[in-house]
Amino acid sequence: MSTSHPPARRPPAPRLDLDEAAAHARRAAVLASVESILGWDEQTMLPPAGGAHRADQVAAVASLAHSLRTDPAQGDRLERLAAAMEGEGEGEGKAEGSDWSADERETVLRLQRDYRKHSRLPARLVEETARACIDGQQAWVDARRRSDWKGFAPKLAHIVALKREQASCQSPDLDPYDSLLDDHEPGARASDVSALFDRLRTSLVPLVRACTGAPHAPIDDVLRGQFPRGAQEVLVRTVAERIGFDFNRGRLDSSEHPFCSTTGPHDCRITTRWDESYLPTALFGVLHEAGHGVYEQGLREEAFGLPAGEAASLGIHESQSRLWENLVGRSLPFWEWCLPLAQTMFPAALSETSPESVQRSLLAVRPSLIRVEADEVTYNLHVMLRFDLERALVRGELAVADLPSAWDDRFEQDFGIRPANAAEGVLQDIHWSAGLIGYFPTYTLGNVYAAQMMAAIERDLPALPMELAAGRFGSLLGWLRERVHHHGRLIDPGRLVAGATGGPISERWLVESLWKRYGAAHGLAQRPPA
Amino acid sequence: MSTSHPPARRPPAPRLDLDEAAAHARRAAVLASVESILGWDEQTMLPPAGGAHRADQVAAVASLAHSLRTDPAQGDRLERLAAAMEGEGEGEGKAEGSDWSADERETVLRLQRDYRKHSRLPARLVEETARACIDGQQAWVDARRRSDWKGFAPKLAHIVALKREQASCQSPDLDPYDSLLDDHEPGARASDVSALFDRLRTSLVPLVRACTGAPHAPIDDVLRGQFPRGAQEVLVRTVAERIGFDFNRGRLDSSEHPFCSTTGPHDCRITTRWDESYLPTALFGVLHEAGHGVYEQGLREEAFGLPAGEAASLGIHESQSRLWENLVGRSLPFWEWCLPLAQTMFPAALSETSPESVQRSLLAVRPSLIRVEADEVTYNLHVMLRFDLERALVRGELAVADLPSAWDDRFEQDFGIRPANAAEGVLQDIHWSAGLIGYFPTYTLGNVYAAQMMAAIERDLPALPMELAAGRFGSLLGWLRERVHHHGRLIDPGRLVAGATGGPISERWLVESLWKRYGAAHGLAQRPPA
Repeated sequence: MSTSHPPARRPPAPRLDLDEAAAHARRAAVLASVESILGWDEQTMLPPAGGAHRADQVAAVASLAHSLRTDPAQGDRLERLAAAMEGEGEGEGKAEGSDWSADERETVLRLQRDYRKHSRLPARLVEETARACIDGQQAWVDARRRSDWKGFAPKLAHIVALKREQASCQSPDLDPYDSLLDDHEPGARASDVSALFDRLRTSLVPLVRACTGAPHAPIDDVLRGQFPRGAQEVLVRTVAERIGFDFNRGRLDSSEHPFCSTTGPHDCRITTRWDESYLPTALFGVLHEAGHGVYEQGLREEAFGLPAGEAASLGIHESQSRLWENLVGRSLPFWEWCLPLAQTMFPAALSETSPESVQRSLLAVRPSLIRVEADEVTYNLHVMLRFDLERALVRGELAVADLPSAWDDRFEQDFGIRPANAAEGVLQDIHWSAGLIGYFPTYTLGNVYAAQMMAAIERDLPALPMELAAGRFGSLLGWLRERVHHHGRLIDPGRLVAGATGGPISERWLVESLWKRYGAAHGLAQRPPA
Repeated sequence: MSTSHPPARRPPAPRLDLDEAAAHARRAAVLASVESILGWDEQTMLPPAGGAHRADQVAAVASLAHSLRTDPAQGDRLERLAAAMEGEGEGEGKAEGSDWSADERETVLRLQRDYRKHSRLPARLVEETARACIDGQQAWVDARRRSDWKGFAPKLAHIVALKREQASCQSPDLDPYDSLLDDHEPGARASDVSALFDRLRTSLVPLVRACTGAPHAPIDDVLRGQFPRGAQEVLVRTVAERIGFDFNRGRLDSSEHPFCSTTGPHDCRITTRWDESYLPTALFGVLHEAGHGVYEQGLREEAFGLPAGEAASLGIHESQSRLWENLVGRSLPFWEWCLPLAQTMFPAALSETSPESVQRSLLAVRPSLIRVEADEVTYNLHVMLRFDLERALVRGELAVADLPSAWDDRFEQDFGIRPANAAEGVLQDIHWSAGLIGYFPTYTLGNVYAAQMMAAIERDLPALPMELAAGRFGSLLGWLRERVHHHGRLIDPGRLVAGATGGPISERWLVESLWKRYGAAHGLAQRPPA
């Protein structure tokens, strides 16, 4: 071999490490996106008998993804990078003469945090948890159908034990519940969430009482009637497209429970369900899921698989869906645009109504047993109940065996009604059976963030009501793209919301928004003193 | 550690090797089935912009599958097993005192053959071929649309070079074309195929001439009219289900080109395309694909991922689809059952017709440019042309640059017409651009096998015409299950067909079947001397 050739020009070593670390992270994200396709297909397409083999497929891909995520070579690369960056000291932006931009520093920090978290989990625990959760979900489907708590309880106890072990392994320096919460809402801590929820609750309980006691409460009968499925499809696709969902990079399908699944930077799939006698079922399902979808489609596609191209948290995700669903979809300007369009498709059902009466009918409040059917006001009480109970479970302050009675007691206290059986109580949600603990609070955090963002948007975009009434959603979407979507997960949710809105996270905006809109719809004179 | 416990009871070492080898093969098959889902989704569901990321997903899974298939630990296991089996000597069935059944021996033999074949391929070649084929298919789509041979030729030349390298690597003891043919039709050799095709051609050419010269040739206008898509869906689903396709373990969807994709032992998906003015487009698409589907659904599910649970070859697969499509679907008894059903769905279009006139209209012969639109008789001439040309390419007797003129000359010689451009000539099929060389001959082998099977079936099941006319397909399906499906790929196609039909593979049955059916439909007096 001759050595007389000049050496090839290569990037300096740390730069090369960064390229390779990014390529590695992308490879893991590609496998994760294959898992997403398998999950989407399972819920929309899979033949009835295909479930067992699908579990094998998911387990195989998940195990390969875990191997990639915990590859020691990646750990070493990130270690070297972090050391090289630290050697340069701290600094905002790309300091004069610095080799590293602020985004690059943040990227390495977050990839390293992910790597450490995954690497601390024994493969045995990952596999056992995956199997317990697949098993748990199948057991839950059956248990809910038969309202059979007893058969399900041992499965859940096993899952809770595994999640506690996971919590201690992955973040030994955190309280176990915080460790699980951090998986879904990076940087959030249960003590802060609990304090926020307590303040929110103090304002919500009197609002619920005032609404349910109001003499002229709205009734949600305006959008009941005959709404053939075909015309509904045309309507909801038009709405989704108009608010910014790009069907060139996405799809809309049907499933029992609506969801949004991102299976690649140019492939985001939403679903809804259909009720031919009640228009809001499909329409609000699509507004919600398309809200998730436009967020995913607004992430930087060139950063696929890297923190700059990934969603900030579940709470931020939910803020986007809730903003479109509740703060746009239940507003008068939206119906000033949407109702005439809907009337052309459903003349018989809608010809006699007005935007005002549609909007008011969408603000009915009625305490009810099932979270996913709850109105916007009582919804958060459902979430808080689950947060308190799952936190007690993880802390060992509540035994799985005592969960049904704890649920029913708390429900009666909060809602004044008591579930008649486990199916309409403790067994109603799939989450715990799927190992999703520390997930519920992000629903209400999303509502809090959404209201805080909308208050800032109304300040920043004074012409918004006129634009919405004309079916123009571009400046609203532009605000969200710039202030929220564009940052990916380079910023933790707390700082992201504060930066976008100009103030720290507070429940104040949600409380004001609910009191203003629901108070008016129920003819309440004024907000009573807290 | 105490050693006073009795040792755990473990299977003897070779038995353990067999269990582990089977588990390993299943793991590879699970990954292959994930690739299938990605492929199915690409052709039926993928949003327009999702193509590039899908290629990344497929490449990632394919590369992991290749690593599994070439895992040296599996090679060692199979080596030890083969040695253990050889130590016992040969023997039919499970000889008295033998540890191994005949199926187990055959399983190890075939897994070892697969392992050696895959392991001889350098990872670099596998990756380069995968990329060249993805690239080639995209270039082909574009080239066909613009009928631009020049832009495509270098891509194809690259693919041919890679396939020749693959051929030499994987089976150094075989002629390169045979090596590629063996990938699709295990045990088949081009010299035998060529001799078979020559004999077939000698009989087909006069039949085509006689049909096209017949004074009262059938015209395929009986099934033209108004056939709304919704009613077509009901009809073709009914037909698919009736011939044995199990929708509990499968689906039917739409795609530009019909296909059948198996994505697990309980998940087989077929597609078709729709023409609201011509019923056979969807119906024969479904009969063909459901024929593939009932084969896949008839494989032993407990042997998923092992030779006993996999299709024997592409030729055998095609024999199943062609048998249902042509030998059942174009028969009079089938239409005696199907026409009354179709008439209830399309009364206006079909009320005036009879089973006899439908059946005769389906036997029109017309030389045409496009293989996938060809009738049953001229179809095989399309295949033989491709077989001869691709064989010459691999042997280096024909340069890629000379392919279009070679194609057009041969086409004119065989069909009496000359393609006006590359799109309706050499660019019409996707196969070569996808690296599928040695694949085309399996189409005509499938027709040969199907006719030979049908001759045996008519002998074994004399009541079949009456059963078909009553819409009873169970005894036909049962024959196929027992004689064909049940063997998986434990037997090579040649022996499988011979065992099922009682005689060696011969073109005789196909020639007789075509002459009999098409001769009658065209009013030909008798078969002329060959």
